[in-house]
Amino acid sequence: MTDRPETPLLDRISSPADLRRLSDGELRRLAGELRTETISAVSQTGGHLGAGLGVVELTVALHAVFDTPKDRLIWDVSHQCYPHKILTGRRDRIRTLRQKDGLSGFTKRSESDFDPFGAAHSSTSISAALGFATARDLGATPEPALGDAIAVIGDGALSAGMAYEAMNNAGHLGKRLIVILNDNEMSIAPPVGAMSSYLSRLYAGAPFQEFKSMAKGAVSFLPPPFQEGARRAKDLLKHMTVGGTLFEALGFSYVGPIDGHDMDQLLPVLRTVKDRAHGPILIHAITRKGKGYAPAEEAADRGHGVSKFDVVTGEQKKAASNAPSYTKVFARSLLQEAADDDRICAVTAAMPDGTGLDLFAERYPSRCFDVGIAEQHGVTFCAGLAAGGMKPFAAIYSTFLQRGYDQVVHDVAIQRLPVRFAIDRAGLVGADGATHAGAFDVAYLSNLPGFTVMAAADEAELAHMVATAAAHDDGPIAFRFPRGEGAGVEMPERGVPLEIGKGRIISEGRDVAILSFGARLSEVRRAEEALGARGIRPTVADARFAKPLDREMILDLAARHEALITIEEGAVGGFGSHVAQLLAEEGVFDTGLRFRSMVLPDTFIDQASPQDMYAVARLNAEDIEDKVMSVLESGVRDKRA
Amino acid sequence: MTDRPETPLLDRISSPADLRRLSDGELRRLAGELRTETISAVSQTGGHLGAGLGVVELTVALHAVFDTPKDRLIWDVSHQCYPHKILTGRRDRIRTLRQKDGLSGFTKRSESDFDPFGAAHSSTSISAALGFATARDLGATPEPALGDAIAVIGDGALSAGMAYEAMNNAGHLGKRLIVILNDNEMSIAPPVGAMSSYLSRLYAGAPFQEFKSMAKGAVSFLPPPFQEGARRAKDLLKHMTVGGTLFEALGFSYVGPIDGHDMDQLLPVLRTVKDRAHGPILIHAITRKGKGYAPAEEAADRGHGVSKFDVVTGEQKKAASNAPSYTKVFARSLLQEAADDDRICAVTAAMPDGTGLDLFAERYPSRCFDVGIAEQHGVTFCAGLAAGGMKPFAAIYSTFLQRGYDQVVHDVAIQRLPVRFAIDRAGLVGADGATHAGAFDVAYLSNLPGFTVMAAADEAELAHMVATAAAHDDGPIAFRFPRGEGAGVEMPERGVPLEIGKGRIISEGRDVAILSFGARLSEVRRAEEALGARGIRPTVADARFAKPLDREMILDLAARHEALITIEEGAVGGFGSHVAQLLAEEGVFDTGLRFRSMVLPDTFIDQASPQDMYAVARLNAEDIEDKVMSVLESGVRDKRA
Repeated sequence: MTDRPETPLLDRISSPADLRRLSDGELRRLAGELRTETISAVSQTGGHLGAGLGVVELTVALHAVFDTPKDRLIWDVSHQCYPHKILTGRRDRIRTLRQKDGLSGFTKRSESDFDPFGAAHSSTSISAALGFATARDLGATPEPALGDAIAVIGDGALSAGMAYEAMNNAGHLGKRLIVILNDNEMSIAPPVGAMSSYLSRLYAGAPFQEFKSMAKGAVSFLPPPFQEGARRAKDLLKHMTVGGTLFEALGFSYVGPIDGHDMDQLLPVLRTVKDRAHGPILIHAITRKGKGYAPAEEAADRGHGVSKFDVVTGEQKKAASNAPSYTKVFARSLLQEAADDDRICAVTAAMPDGTGLDLFAERYPSRCFDVGIAEQHGVTFCAGLAAGGMKPFAAIYSTFLQRGYDQVVHDVAIQRLPVRFAIDRAGLVGADGATHAGAFDVAYLSNLPGFTVMAAADEAELAHMVATAAAHDDGPIAFRFPRGEGAGVEMPERGVPLEIGKGRIISEGRDVAILSFGARLSEVRRAEEALGARGIRPTVADARFAKPLDREMILDLAARHEALITIEEGAVGGFGSHVAQLLAEEGVFDTGLRFRSMVLPDTFIDQASPQDMYAVARLNAEDIEDKVMSVLESGVRDKRA
Repeated sequence: MTDRPETPLLDRISSPADLRRLSDGELRRLAGELRTETISAVSQTGGHLGAGLGVVELTVALHAVFDTPKDRLIWDVSHQCYPHKILTGRRDRIRTLRQKDGLSGFTKRSESDFDPFGAAHSSTSISAALGFATARDLGATPEPALGDAIAVIGDGALSAGMAYEAMNNAGHLGKRLIVILNDNEMSIAPPVGAMSSYLSRLYAGAPFQEFKSMAKGAVSFLPPPFQEGARRAKDLLKHMTVGGTLFEALGFSYVGPIDGHDMDQLLPVLRTVKDRAHGPILIHAITRKGKGYAPAEEAADRGHGVSKFDVVTGEQKKAASNAPSYTKVFARSLLQEAADDDRICAVTAAMPDGTGLDLFAERYPSRCFDVGIAEQHGVTFCAGLAAGGMKPFAAIYSTFLQRGYDQVVHDVAIQRLPVRFAIDRAGLVGADGATHAGAFDVAYLSNLPGFTVMAAADEAELAHMVATAAAHDDGPIAFRFPRGEGAGVEMPERGVPLEIGKGRIISEGRDVAILSFGARLSEVRRAEEALGARGIRPTVADARFAKPLDREMILDLAARHEALITIEEGAVGGFGSHVAQLLAEEGVFDTGLRFRSMVLPDTFIDQASPQDMYAVARLNAEDIEDKVMSVLESGVRDKRA
């Protein structure tokens, strides 16, 4: 506790109501303490640092001016919510952020009334806020009662079509709705796209220094006629002179740009908006990610996601890594393929670092495309590239590919276009929790006609699957791989294309067949060892393909064993279900095969280490061992006729 | 053949190359003939009439000016492609449109080189065109070689975030790319949203009459310095004076508005763009849906989708309907619920008529929301409404709900918010073919923790399921129902809430259990009759719920029968897979239960009547009968142990 910062003002705040009793000067000082406390907490837990530091003043100002939790404050993505959690009654648990049984790293309805709408994926906040505003205007009476609806959304998140859809609808409905555009020119990577340049032009044309002197002209969001207060409002709110028309075209009033770190701008603007706004209004606030903490401000990613660190030096305590990460192996393998084939190109949806495509962009800048947070467009853009004769790799996390699902079906699968999907973060992912789990991709891809779906059992397999995808021109192909380090297996010089639809036997046994799809294979091998000590010899196989299935291998395994167990890092409906369908159609169940399918359970699993999450999911070695024992014991039951 | 119109010019056109030899005057006359031929063809086939009539001149002009198929012409949605098909070598088959083994009602890559990118869902064309343009600039060399990329997109389609994502990316990349905004103020229903009002303001401020006289000032998309031709361009291309800045903000040059039915505007503008454009450019053309055919122009939906009709009178030949459509039953049932509960509201994504919500909007205008073609926003808007205490019904076709899948997972399921999903067009849908099939929803919803998933066996069941959804406040709930007429069963006064997770036994037999999920139940009953004639008595059950499963009923059926067959109108991974998982976990397969799961086959099925499509899918009564016979015969095989 001795290394905790001095925070005399913050210590007096147990809920946002306490903020409303402070003077503007005290609020300014409080922001400083809140920043220090945020840095201190994240130094112990790791997590999203830069985003929270960028909204410290905004967080204080919003809670001071608005009547939360009655006024619904919705943080887009919500990885910037740590200061918000500190102010809203969760300071005592803030050093449990992202830990097992601790606070979520995102807003979460079940955690607090001050989190009216959880998030983790981007660009949902305006839609949700419009829902609250509409419910309010329809007279709904939830607990707490409904007040204002306020969405805080980053400039990066504005590249997503969903945000545009929401603004288009909000502008049409005309309901009172407040959107704060938190413009830090930075989401995870620097944002891309024409909108981003547009926003830069907006405030390049109107520096803050001129904020007060330029404040004149119509204040369009104020209801006419102005009464007293209008003069003050005119002084405070700059008339949009440099082209806020994109938002105006969508039916919003536009205020800004203002300095999102200057309480002397934030407080009066928010107060005036609260008192006077009618209809949808967008406040354009310029902030700096990592603000106020030099090691974050100076980092290329502005301290986006950090490990535990030393507060004084900013040095992060990263665990020594034994094996290359799957992401790195993917990136390197793709570079090898791209060196030989200039038709290979790569697409990321605003995640160049996370997907490893930063390396590709460096080497082959003209063949690498960051489309913004725009999975829908990204997938169909790839379909167009494929139709135009290129070999596009769409590198998208499992959970985010959900955003482009219709495009995968309608533009890629139905047209049988050879788009390659590199699906990172398959399975459970750890500290990011349920919202980032890659649980459903095998199910939602494997029933698409013409698709090929692979999962890598280890990092060497991943290299082979990249080569397989590069070589495969007959329709779409996907390969999934988990977050984190590989299994530490020997790596080939270079991946070699696999035969489509062929699995491999890992070890021959006799008592039971365990058919693994993906990276649970290492747990299966651990279970195999434990079972061996009990005199039980399983046959272990790696399916490699959920589609097309290796029918021959699977039917042979079923014929040669009393029991067959499948295992995968995904929900029901995926690999195991396809195996079951094959066994049913071939009449194998008729023979009394003892079949089990180990899948993710029917529950969203909260953050913890991946190992702990898989323990909850019952997909670790000891769970496999248990499953084998129980299925062998069931062999003593009576049979039908 | 005698009722075919006289089309002397059109008769000379066997491919677009022939157009390029005609004078402007001849092209104008040709457009008239093409319109007549389109009307004649659709009068015999039914289909999308209004959209095609609205782009007759545009179709002629584009093919006359651009070098198709080298230049890739991509029709958004593509239900307006009939005139395009007539001009591109498919006139001899145009009267097979939407029929079994006939031409698709949409563009289709496998049909013609002139269809570089198929579509049917909305708002994909700019992404695809950007893919082609990028492939071209990267030196890809497909057959035919790559020229210009041209997307033709409607104003309604611009309400989808995907189109915005694509423009945002295109404006950033700056590649030569041509987008024609076909603005007819009408998609299927009148378009909604702020963008739509914005477009209206754009051309309200600049009537066509002034087109030539107003043409002056900078022509921003022309590469400086202008050479000869610039004067002509300046004369032809109106400088954007009324606020084309929304597109300019996104990095596009803006030209327009122009009269999309006036060849004297279309031809010179397209020629100048072709000669001079660099970077992305948007041409804003105003058209009229149904143009040139009075019965269509005068219809409320501008002849959007028609049955066969009499060309002279416009009278449509609609088949007499015996039972109310599922859509009507849904709409009426929802009205009944809404009358008693003012928390019930409804959301459609630009399909008020198709979903039946037009009735709801009439009765409860303040509680009905058309969000535009914006399923992503629509789903999260519903999540916000639910969090705000309302009871939202999201009425979205199965195939379009794919557009909002991530929002279903991330905003609805993870937060366990009670959004009600009314999923129309489940299963195979007939003339609209594979792109509109509702094949995947059971699979992609049933593995989401906390979801309840139902399917209606008939229209009375649907009424009960609407009541069930209205009463269910514990998490999200979905109910699916097919396109078309109900089974003709007796209707209850009003739906009564079903017990969650409980199926029903339809008839008790002994030889085999058939467990149906959804509207195949009537086919199962037909099969039951045929089997009875052969002395076989199946037990028939209606599962009602894919999630939660009626474990008790299913395990009891499995215990009491040698064989269990599931059937559903969906792909593998859905209901049958969840039943298989239950049977596996409970060790029922160990006993040699002969299990089969009848699902949609692993292929996209081309358009035909639903009955014919289900014959291809092998899900009709005779297929069920065959399956029962084969599974009973397999009972003679040897058993294990």
